[in-house]
Amino acid sequence: MTRGLFISFEGTDGTGKSTQIELLRRYFQEAGQECVYLREPGGTAIGERVREVLLDNRSRGMTARTEALLYAASRAQLVETVIEPALETGKNVICDRYVDSSYAYQEFGRDLGSSVVDINEFATGGLMPDMTLLLMLDRQAARERMAARGGEADRIENEGDAFMEKVAAGYLKVAKRYPDRIRVIDASKAPEEIAAEIRSEVEMLQDRKTRAEGASGARPGNSDSEELE
Amino acid sequence: MTRGLFISFEGTDGTGKSTQIELLRRYFQEAGQECVYLREPGGTAIGERVREVLLDNRSRGMTARTEALLYAASRAQLVETVIEPALETGKNVICDRYVDSSYAYQEFGRDLGSSVVDINEFATGGLMPDMTLLLMLDRQAARERMAARGGEADRIENEGDAFMEKVAAGYLKVAKRYPDRIRVIDASKAPEEIAAEIRSEVEMLQDRKTRAEGASGARPGNSDSEELE
Repeated sequence: MTRGLFISFEGTDGTGKSTQIELLRRYFQEAGQECVYLREPGGTAIGERVREVLLDNRSRGMTARTEALLYAASRAQLVETVIEPALETGKNVICDRYVDSSYAYQEFGRDLGSSVVDINEFATGGLMPDMTLLLMLDRQAARERMAARGGEADRIENEGDAFMEKVAAGYLKVAKRYPDRIRVIDASKAPEEIAAEIRSEVEMLQDRKTRAEGASGARPGNSDSEELE
Repeated sequence: MTRGLFISFEGTDGTGKSTQIELLRRYFQEAGQECVYLREPGGTAIGERVREVLLDNRSRGMTARTEALLYAASRAQLVETVIEPALETGKNVICDRYVDSSYAYQEFGRDLGSSVVDINEFATGGLMPDMTLLLMLDRQAARERMAARGGEADRIENEGDAFMEKVAAGYLKVAKRYPDRIRVIDASKAPEEIAAEIRSEVEMLQDRKTRAEGASGARPGNSDSEELE
């Protein structure tokens, strides 16, 4: 069974992640490929309970370390019980936020440093996305999109502009740290233009993967047939 | 201000921790010393919500890594918002379970290994108890005491004897790792006998602390007065 693709979307709120995720889901559907969509924190019964604690505005007194550990706890449950089984049975997985959110928001935004990387290595067992799409948009534009969307802001969204600027700067540092995995996307373009860029990236990723599997799949087949003759 | 004493109680359920904690609280009260009592997981509004998720029998599908991270999250909140402020204002702190529970139950009981130590170093900022009282009792006796106590068993208590034997063996490994901090106590003795042993340990700890503070407090005082003369 060919392992599915694992793609994560990153960026601060208001950068258009939800729109692009929906367009990519449709693309997989039209291509006849099974696709599991998940959001963080959450995506499991236990993770959704942790999500409530994390985003609740009553949790204002939460310490930075508690926050980092709760995100990691939710992620650990998601990886072992949902993401890994889906990938193993050949399904593609799209995740709305993953480890890079913890790097941007906790390692850099909260100044917790590289311990956050170690904690997430433990939480995920080292599972990283095949590709991460990072949507970047200036703060003013992101704020306008969030206002247009309406609804009540959660505890993290209520952190204010100075924190969000730090998170955005953190995202760019993370993109430099993992240049092979992360694609930085200019989210000020038209949604259809961004979607075309993402589809093109996904197609290139699938081509690379098919070629890699063909190369590794060919050798054991040949040696088997030699042994049988 | 003299920093308070930080004392933790450890042991599997049914070893008599609650009884001994109550007797030590009375001892501090009679000695006119302020004392804060806390339980883990929990002890804060956020920690109590995490406790519900951890001990709920509906959380049976929780992975070992998620469990370790949730205990650490609850602990991080407790250390920064309750334990440290109490110790700094001179109050003694008694904690029903602390990091050694994570070592015994997750590092050894769940076979997660030494990552659990790193995660807890992050969660606590390195704060360790001045003394840890580890109550050890054979499994059969502990089970009888729990049955006598009644009430419904939580998710961890429902793990069964094989797991609890592993946890008890884990506790003994932890006691060997931190011989200066951990006192292993034979919990099969009469409660009053155990309480006398604990009071004696606490008095010795207080004497050591008073002498250490006298020694370190003398020097700055002397140099100050020299400068003033």
